[in-house]
Amino acid sequence: MNISEKITALRRLMEQKGWDAAVIPGTDPHGSEYLPERWQHRKWISGFTGSFGTVVITRSHAGLWTDTRYFIQARKELEGTGFELHPLRVPDAVDYPQWLAGTLPAGSVTCIDGDCMSYRQVLVLRQYLSVSGGSIVNTPNFLDQTGRISPPLPLSPVFILEKQYSGQRTEEKLAWLRGQLSSRGCSHILLGALDQIAWLFNIRSRDIPYNPVAVSYALVDSRRATLFITPGKVGDNVRMVLREQGVEIVPYESLISVLEALPLGSVFMADGDTLNYTLFNLLLSRFGSAGVKDLPSPVILAKAIKNPVETEGFRKAFLNDGLAMERFLFWLEKSMEQDIPLTEKDAADKLSWMRTLSPDSMGDSFQYVSAYGANAALPHYSASATSSSRLEKKGFFLIDSGGHYLYGTTDITRTVPLGPLTPLEREDYTVVLKGMIALSRAVFLKGTQGAHLDMLAKDPLWRYRRNYGHGTGHGIGHFLCVHEGPQDIRLTWKDQELLPGMVTSNEPGIYREGSHGVRHENILLCKELEENEFGRWLGFETLTLCHIDTSAIVASLLERGEIEWLNLYNKSVYEKMVPFLTYEESRWLQKKTAPLT
Amino acid sequence: MNISEKITALRRLMEQKGWDAAVIPGTDPHGSEYLPERWQHRKWISGFTGSFGTVVITRSHAGLWTDTRYFIQARKELEGTGFELHPLRVPDAVDYPQWLAGTLPAGSVTCIDGDCMSYRQVLVLRQYLSVSGGSIVNTPNFLDQTGRISPPLPLSPVFILEKQYSGQRTEEKLAWLRGQLSSRGCSHILLGALDQIAWLFNIRSRDIPYNPVAVSYALVDSRRATLFITPGKVGDNVRMVLREQGVEIVPYESLISVLEALPLGSVFMADGDTLNYTLFNLLLSRFGSAGVKDLPSPVILAKAIKNPVETEGFRKAFLNDGLAMERFLFWLEKSMEQDIPLTEKDAADKLSWMRTLSPDSMGDSFQYVSAYGANAALPHYSASATSSSRLEKKGFFLIDSGGHYLYGTTDITRTVPLGPLTPLEREDYTVVLKGMIALSRAVFLKGTQGAHLDMLAKDPLWRYRRNYGHGTGHGIGHFLCVHEGPQDIRLTWKDQELLPGMVTSNEPGIYREGSHGVRHENILLCKELEENEFGRWLGFETLTLCHIDTSAIVASLLERGEIEWLNLYNKSVYEKMVPFLTYEESRWLQKKTAPLT
Repeated sequence: MNISEKITALRRLMEQKGWDAAVIPGTDPHGSEYLPERWQHRKWISGFTGSFGTVVITRSHAGLWTDTRYFIQARKELEGTGFELHPLRVPDAVDYPQWLAGTLPAGSVTCIDGDCMSYRQVLVLRQYLSVSGGSIVNTPNFLDQTGRISPPLPLSPVFILEKQYSGQRTEEKLAWLRGQLSSRGCSHILLGALDQIAWLFNIRSRDIPYNPVAVSYALVDSRRATLFITPGKVGDNVRMVLREQGVEIVPYESLISVLEALPLGSVFMADGDTLNYTLFNLLLSRFGSAGVKDLPSPVILAKAIKNPVETEGFRKAFLNDGLAMERFLFWLEKSMEQDIPLTEKDAADKLSWMRTLSPDSMGDSFQYVSAYGANAALPHYSASATSSSRLEKKGFFLIDSGGHYLYGTTDITRTVPLGPLTPLEREDYTVVLKGMIALSRAVFLKGTQGAHLDMLAKDPLWRYRRNYGHGTGHGIGHFLCVHEGPQDIRLTWKDQELLPGMVTSNEPGIYREGSHGVRHENILLCKELEENEFGRWLGFETLTLCHIDTSAIVASLLERGEIEWLNLYNKSVYEKMVPFLTYEESRWLQKKTAPLT
Repeated sequence: MNISEKITALRRLMEQKGWDAAVIPGTDPHGSEYLPERWQHRKWISGFTGSFGTVVITRSHAGLWTDTRYFIQARKELEGTGFELHPLRVPDAVDYPQWLAGTLPAGSVTCIDGDCMSYRQVLVLRQYLSVSGGSIVNTPNFLDQTGRISPPLPLSPVFILEKQYSGQRTEEKLAWLRGQLSSRGCSHILLGALDQIAWLFNIRSRDIPYNPVAVSYALVDSRRATLFITPGKVGDNVRMVLREQGVEIVPYESLISVLEALPLGSVFMADGDTLNYTLFNLLLSRFGSAGVKDLPSPVILAKAIKNPVETEGFRKAFLNDGLAMERFLFWLEKSMEQDIPLTEKDAADKLSWMRTLSPDSMGDSFQYVSAYGANAALPHYSASATSSSRLEKKGFFLIDSGGHYLYGTTDITRTVPLGPLTPLEREDYTVVLKGMIALSRAVFLKGTQGAHLDMLAKDPLWRYRRNYGHGTGHGIGHFLCVHEGPQDIRLTWKDQELLPGMVTSNEPGIYREGSHGVRHENILLCKELEENEFGRWLGFETLTLCHIDTSAIVASLLERGEIEWLNLYNKSVYEKMVPFLTYEESRWLQKKTAPLT
């Protein structure tokens, strides 16, 4: 079936059922950013492959809602399908709930797949629709009634992350979680987010691209802890380890029957932002509103605050990762010097391969951005086999990449000068660097939030009247998802302070359409500095180890303190790397890290 | 009657009426910060004279709730009265609604004066009390039943602020306001905040200390505009000018009967944050919830965005004010050199007198903070006739003062070195200056909010692990209240962007108990800079004209750009002042403004 046949089949179903609209979200029952084939409904109906977007089909309209990151990709992928692109995160954007409310007739019926939307998302949609008497019908997997065949659940084996890496046994985490439950007057917690479950049970798997998680649910009460997972994924060894720590393994599909068998009077802690609508609703209808407390899962914050074993692991991961990066940059420079023809994809593949050579490498942590020249002006550009520009001996090459290691996850961007640069390219490179340095050096009082800190990265750019449209920082999981909450660093307000132990990216940029893009990204560990009469002071340790090329810098734009920071940073990279480098590599890195004066 | 007799009388009344608690707020029916004697209920019952605080009396407890600014003053004023101080804006502070909810028995009755509390304040109190079935009784002026005699309404004459100062005639403002009403589907707006009324009708008066406003209400519909005010305050001339612009004058006391005579079906725009509970409730009970739209008054934002005539007026006011300041600083330095004994109060009186010599001076804009040495460590210290420290030839003297002029209002703080300084004093002086300069030089995208900008002032202090507990910036009225909204610059989140035309203070500080305090305060005008591919850029023009003493600076702590800003600033002060100075004064100022190298 092609796209237009699929839409026709869905419209036939909609007519049969009396639905005016169908919403096909881009996530799965666990709210994942990357998802298994089984739940790639949106890709099936539209062909759009981005990590964020929602499709809405009405009797006369087929639309895709996605944000700035994916405009170009979406336009390309939707070409000729009849889908219209609805841009988000632009001025006057109209998201699909609002659009539906303004488009559908009074008393309309909208079908959703409540498995693949969070409870909160459905509440918002319902609120918009209710203004004109619209209602919602929850029909999980309704695309299966139009000819789609759901792929089976993924079957990658589960493995245990030992305490030497996780720093805390599942028993301890469960004891803490039970304390959280009782302090909130709850008897049970149901977890659906895969990274929360992976953290709680110290398990990892490969069910999903880039995110080392296992498709599963978790149910914890004061005595029992149950992991709902396809049994074939769990070997005897893992089963035994989990059983020893009080975790019972039960088939993934049996969740609903287990929930329905729980005693009335149970009180659930359930997070309406991460739990899907079908499950949240099931809890509500069985246990009543007094039996369901809609609270953020306490696992989110606990997971974000890395323990000492995890932070030490991160340091090791960034040493491995820095070596892979430096070897890649060395290879790149030598290849360019020798006029070896290279495409963006060749470079990305080489770097990914360099990472696999690292000890304890566990694969890439996201799809690399490998972008030459004007392609780098698209912050989320993705080179593919069919379209991948050739690197030339001028301008910038931007590479945003990362890896998983048993003891941590990395994410790094470097903007590499490949030859002569324009004055504007040099200025942009320097100004972005000022932003990154400002955030790296931040000293702040406990209680400071991401929107405050973002100003430190923005200010140096703004003084030159330049800006970027994406966030400055996202949380990073410990051998888990490369994007995690609850903290972030962006101007939009969010009530979450930065806390010691949090690992967050620092990635300002400048993008000039049709010309070039610059981004520098290091990863920061939040640390306690001292307490004095004014309060408790926090700061950052830069975890990333990979030199910053000084040849592209306009030195006169840097303040004294910025130059000091840069020289110290490059020096420490050299000193930490040199024991592992060949003679030729170390000579090269020594030159690269020579102090800027 | 002394305090304890007053409390006894109130408790007798409470017993008669069956009240468990009585709330005596520190404001008036117009939500004023400074108030006429008539409504100084809180001062009458407690003796506390600060500008912020609430008294609560129960059968067994008498408490005052106030914030950090007034702890010392409150402790002094409450001594021996039996009042207990409840601190606010400290960690784990418990405000009075919460305290009452935790203290009163189930089914309690709390008496309030609904004239002197905003609708929103009462809603909050009611919500707390309702948890244990508590209720509220609204008895305006209940202290009059305990022996207090309400002073009469103030009778200062009203005068018109001509268009040459206001920039916009009342007719035009009314036409704009009517547009606001109709766009929100409202037929009427009732205004209670005195500065909003003064702005709308271009009137000023002296009913209240420091704030040049007239006690009044305003009612505007699509055809009529009514000013409710004591008739004796309005001369024939003013009456005629207002009548010409379509404003009718009606006695202050007739408001309620006028409201009650309005046709049912009227729809009010009413601001629950600024309108008092009694009036808001009256509207609700007469016009129903469909007839009262609780919206922020559109006058608040319009008043904050100064028009070109007002901004030009501000520049003139700051020139006058700077001259008064420079002459004062010259006099102070000469007096100290000549060993003339001076107290904090002497200095404040002198400066106030210097301001009265300025053309078009209209008095002080707030109670000066004139604080020597350790006294300056209390940000809101107030010297009085009975306790006023002597200035000595060492350390810092801090003076925070301001004036009204027909064309603008000023607010300025300078920290003046009077002799030898400790290294810490110098460092603090320099670091605070870095904070003030950073905000002065800010360049920011339209949409940036005060909590973002505050980080720019905080960052330079935080790098040295120093901080201050007050906000960095407040809005300033145009020959109106020295504190006005809606914008402010502080870390606490508030959904209000800075907009071109807004006038805001920039006043970081450092306070060291028992030792010294430093604050530098300039006033900033927000301006449009340019629009480019990244967005619309805004910045600030510094309005304040008064040199910053460079002798207290540790130059090595300043960056190149900071020194440039400072030298340019001092140079422009000198150039603008010199035509008005005596030869001796100008020689002195030339030295004071010599560039720092």
